[in-house]
Amino acid sequence: MPTDFPATVTINEEGPREGFQIEPGPISTADKVAFVEALAGTGVRKIDCVSFVDPRRVPGMADADAVATGIHRVPGIRYTGLWLNERGLDRALALPLDTVGAIRVTASETFSTNNTGKGIVATQDEQRRWLERYVAAGIPVESGYVMTAFGCNFEGEVPVATVIDMVAFILELVDGAGLPRPRVFLADTVGHAAPSAIERVVGAVRDRWPDLPLGLHLHDTRGLGVANVHAALALGVDHFDAACAGLGGCPFAGHAGAAGNVCTEEVVFLCEELGIDTGIDLERMIDCARMAEEIVGHRLPGKLTRGGSLRAIRGGQVAA
Amino acid sequence: MPTDFPATVTINEEGPREGFQIEPGPISTADKVAFVEALAGTGVRKIDCVSFVDPRRVPGMADADAVATGIHRVPGIRYTGLWLNERGLDRALALPLDTVGAIRVTASETFSTNNTGKGIVATQDEQRRWLERYVAAGIPVESGYVMTAFGCNFEGEVPVATVIDMVAFILELVDGAGLPRPRVFLADTVGHAAPSAIERVVGAVRDRWPDLPLGLHLHDTRGLGVANVHAALALGVDHFDAACAGLGGCPFAGHAGAAGNVCTEEVVFLCEELGIDTGIDLERMIDCARMAEEIVGHRLPGKLTRGGSLRAIRGGQVAA
Repeated sequence: MPTDFPATVTINEEGPREGFQIEPGPISTADKVAFVEALAGTGVRKIDCVSFVDPRRVPGMADADAVATGIHRVPGIRYTGLWLNERGLDRALALPLDTVGAIRVTASETFSTNNTGKGIVATQDEQRRWLERYVAAGIPVESGYVMTAFGCNFEGEVPVATVIDMVAFILELVDGAGLPRPRVFLADTVGHAAPSAIERVVGAVRDRWPDLPLGLHLHDTRGLGVANVHAALALGVDHFDAACAGLGGCPFAGHAGAAGNVCTEEVVFLCEELGIDTGIDLERMIDCARMAEEIVGHRLPGKLTRGGSLRAIRGGQVAA
Repeated sequence: MPTDFPATVTINEEGPREGFQIEPGPISTADKVAFVEALAGTGVRKIDCVSFVDPRRVPGMADADAVATGIHRVPGIRYTGLWLNERGLDRALALPLDTVGAIRVTASETFSTNNTGKGIVATQDEQRRWLERYVAAGIPVESGYVMTAFGCNFEGEVPVATVIDMVAFILELVDGAGLPRPRVFLADTVGHAAPSAIERVVGAVRDRWPDLPLGLHLHDTRGLGVANVHAALALGVDHFDAACAGLGGCPFAGHAGAAGNVCTEEVVFLCEELGIDTGIDLERMIDCARMAEEIVGHRLPGKLTRGGSLRAIRGGQVAA
């Protein structure tokens, strides 16, 4: 399998935000803070900590401000939050978080409407206003997201041409504002992707924009998450969102089986075995996954929590 | 990623044997029989049903004879059992099972000793006697197994040269008896493999024996199981052992986190997405996985049990 593996990979840790918002909880503010602080000790450089969303819709994020305030920050790590409306941004700006903007569009009209109340065109209008807002406030626009880029639970297959249109929209928007092009994340929001789809969609975007920095946001709904990461690595993709222990899921995916992001420690383990540097200490990330299970009070999907790494085994210590 | 995908893949279902022997149970004989019969309705062509092992060591298999007798067989499907000693073979021969022989060696001296009480040389002597026994009884030798071919929990890395030696031993043995060469399964018994190791070990065996039919027996201890299947498919490997719902684990792996085989329905889903025919109905295999969870009384690792297939979604039905 001739490949184009990157030398280094950057992982954005999504566990605290993607994970804790869907857990039945309640999870204490102190536990949330402690988890973010433990993650900061793994070597990961970006941690998505909280969502600024309506607590009536997502009660698990009602204490987002307290979590953001409570974190003892480690220099060099970026602690981010997610907002989806003006009020959320105002909350984020008042807190000691790293405020980075993103342009977010969805390649499925139905998913877009069900998830945000707005269809594709209305979302694009809204994103234009967000871009103006970010420019006015001096907030860097670092990423673009194309959600449901690999399929939708309502519409089924999402045409690659639609994904291309969504990427084109993001790039035209930032180009028009004279901003540097952001990294574009293709999101398998509801876990439809297989390695063949990764190759097809990433390939089509690459064909059109050979130099565009890409990332993937993958959910492991159907067990192919790590295989999809491997396929993307072989294409040279070097940025991934992932969640410690496989925390997460989407409350609005229209699907009871919606699963979390690909599991951070599994992606780190894969990269280590391929000789790719992530900057993350695998043992510490596994410790965080065990901590996550203690916090949520049940088993989480990540397999290394029980499987462990190979470091001690290869170091000649007899297995436990 | 240029690939050499096979047009068809054969999956040996290991769930009933690998899975039920490790469950704390008790699982009724009737449930075991019903599960095998449900699997027989999926299109899978070979089902490993029981182990003929010492019930004091593996109490979950004490009713192996009753299970084997209870199954209503479907013509064209092979129902097999595993024996590790003469008494086990005698039990198997007295039952309505398909009796097929295998030559089994382990590429780690320590694992071999801990698992079977015999080191590599003693195991090879024993396998010579098994071969004579199979020839005398007219039992076909269809497969060879090299266990711990990708690593060992006691010895750490297993040299590729040792794996080659083990394959050479199997082939010399059957060649010497004038038998057709069996399919050789490389087994990642304790889940150390990554796609890079699959390529390295399969590549080395292929270099030495380009026409030898190969298979893989993979455990998903560290989350890379499906990625490993994908890497093997890309090399043209077309036979896999797998377990419905990810049932299983090894009671003698020296590791509390030993996990089951790669999950059958995830392998089937991967193959479908790659356009590879397995002959297995994915929906029915997912139904079997749900049945397995009901039987064991707890969640099992397979993700499609909750994620579901994409058939209804792509067919235009709104997701549940």
